[in-house]
Amino acid sequence: MTIFNFSAGPAVLPRDVLQQAREELLDWNGSGMSVMEMSHRGKEFMGIAATAEADLRSLLSIPENYKVLFLQGGAHLQFAMIPLNLLCDKLSVDYVNTGEWSKKAIAEAKKFAKVNIVASGADQNFINVPAFETWKCDPEAAYLHYTSNETIGGVEFNWIPESGDVPLVADMSSNILSRPVDVSRYGLIYAGAQKNIGPAGLCIVIVREDLIGKVTPGMPTMLDYKIHADNDSMYNTPPTFGIYMAGLVFSWLKRNGGLVQMEQLNIRKANLLYDAIDASNGFYNCPVVRSDRSRMNVPFTLKDASLDGEFLKQADQHGLLQLKGHRSVGGMRASIYNAMPLEGVQTLVEFLTHFAKRHG
Amino acid sequence: MTIFNFSAGPAVLPRDVLQQAREELLDWNGSGMSVMEMSHRGKEFMGIAATAEADLRSLLSIPENYKVLFLQGGAHLQFAMIPLNLLCDKLSVDYVNTGEWSKKAIAEAKKFAKVNIVASGADQNFINVPAFETWKCDPEAAYLHYTSNETIGGVEFNWIPESGDVPLVADMSSNILSRPVDVSRYGLIYAGAQKNIGPAGLCIVIVREDLIGKVTPGMPTMLDYKIHADNDSMYNTPPTFGIYMAGLVFSWLKRNGGLVQMEQLNIRKANLLYDAIDASNGFYNCPVVRSDRSRMNVPFTLKDASLDGEFLKQADQHGLLQLKGHRSVGGMRASIYNAMPLEGVQTLVEFLTHFAKRHG
Repeated sequence: MTIFNFSAGPAVLPRDVLQQAREELLDWNGSGMSVMEMSHRGKEFMGIAATAEADLRSLLSIPENYKVLFLQGGAHLQFAMIPLNLLCDKLSVDYVNTGEWSKKAIAEAKKFAKVNIVASGADQNFINVPAFETWKCDPEAAYLHYTSNETIGGVEFNWIPESGDVPLVADMSSNILSRPVDVSRYGLIYAGAQKNIGPAGLCIVIVREDLIGKVTPGMPTMLDYKIHADNDSMYNTPPTFGIYMAGLVFSWLKRNGGLVQMEQLNIRKANLLYDAIDASNGFYNCPVVRSDRSRMNVPFTLKDASLDGEFLKQADQHGLLQLKGHRSVGGMRASIYNAMPLEGVQTLVEFLTHFAKRHG
Repeated sequence: MTIFNFSAGPAVLPRDVLQQAREELLDWNGSGMSVMEMSHRGKEFMGIAATAEADLRSLLSIPENYKVLFLQGGAHLQFAMIPLNLLCDKLSVDYVNTGEWSKKAIAEAKKFAKVNIVASGADQNFINVPAFETWKCDPEAAYLHYTSNETIGGVEFNWIPESGDVPLVADMSSNILSRPVDVSRYGLIYAGAQKNIGPAGLCIVIVREDLIGKVTPGMPTMLDYKIHADNDSMYNTPPTFGIYMAGLVFSWLKRNGGLVQMEQLNIRKANLLYDAIDASNGFYNCPVVRSDRSRMNVPFTLKDASLDGEFLKQADQHGLLQLKGHRSVGGMRASIYNAMPLEGVQTLVEFLTHFAKRHG
């Protein structure tokens, strides 16, 4: 039976990538070493890291005045590093609240800065992105932060906020590389790797150079972007195997038509799944308004929640894994990142239809 | 040709471990998923993490009143987290300076606390561990920190300092699991994984429970041991593949007789190499005094440094890789961690002898 893994992260990786990793696991490129056994300062690994960065730059057309950092600590550590590095002599920071991940970023930022919530989806129970006309942005804010895709709530931005001279900061953990994006509109983009990039334990930060070098004094050295930028992410030993795996994923994306092609496929997969939910006469329901539905994470509920257990059990039996919704919201969630093949979504849709017929 | 990799870290891993990782890379235990694709909160990965912790506890006989944390950021982040979590209402901290890694720990601690250097190997150019009778410890210090093995200088403690009621803290990055150790003598032990444990990007902290929960206010949440302890190292997504690999290494150690057996092998390997250096009539030289020579990292120089290039070239041709000394000290360094087989050291010794004969 073919398995399809709908985990929200760590999540499915491209089969080709895993196969290449397996082939090279004991001997990378005739070196006699596993990538895991290489000095990070040796020529072999330096080459792997340089290629990974070059491919990421190519995929996202990252301008030359942006640094790419390969860090540890996930988005959670960035929740602190961003205010600590970007606040400078400003008095406050602007945040948009579109759900659980926004809230986590906001809570951490409050430890270091006055946080203005410029817009919130809370009134609508986080089923949409607040219309930009309603945002109350502060032109004196140190930066404007938003979560481009809410992994738990399934709310995604289909547009880039206009922040004027205020640096725009985005947590793209769960939709980076799922579509082309104009990096030049941003001051800083960050993403934990474990959804669309590679294994957990790697966090990628893309930051405009003029924003680097103004960290709050008295903080740990490891929290200063400048240290990592000046040392090409090798101030300390980086998560070498994660960088290698990310590089394989970047190469896979390039071989498969890059982000333009990936976006087309992601739209097709998402439409297929949302259409099935919407066509179920209420047997399944996705609460998110159509224009703001995530292409990556599709949350849905069964009208009769007492069927949840049976649904998950049968899904498992059909090889459709990890569909249980986040513990904070319940219901179901199908995460359909880049690496989820169209066939996986088709199989899920067939299962949804079949299950609804039998239990509707 | 058999390759032997003497990298100081990331470093050689046991062949058996890499082979098992390769076999399971696309399908762990019939789950249909790679370990890299598993939700960290799913039953499969929770089991992997629990087994890894149990095996580490068993190997080191870790008492029940100690927490084991699987963190990110390497020893470098611990250099900050240790003073930030352990200073409490004390005024100063005690550090022993035995070389490059001690110095890094000391420099970072100075950002957060008054640091007393209780003993230093600087006067002797870091070729020994200062005799304990000469240490000027402060009974009121928040803790006493030392580096149990200096990866660059090749100086290793063969004894545990007596710190009385002051918590003893050790950076064991490069010699953890190389011998049995009485954990109950310590307040906190930490180690980056990439030498004797597994791939880079994982850092293990073993900390006595009463030392947890007193972090300096106003610091990032991720720097608080209590957050990680209360959440079983899953406050955020942990480096799952690194934990899995560490677990395979722990299991390999248990299968091979545990740390008692490992120590015997490490003594044998180290003696073999040091004896060859000492028997070379000065062609090779190791500056470290005999009683404090590291069993893990063996630094040595050639009397005629103009032969360094030729030595490294011929070593490479013989499959003896990554013998170049650290850029800060030059010369050569052979790192012979747990995973370096006896055969690797024997091959190196043959090469040393042969090279000295031809060029001596």
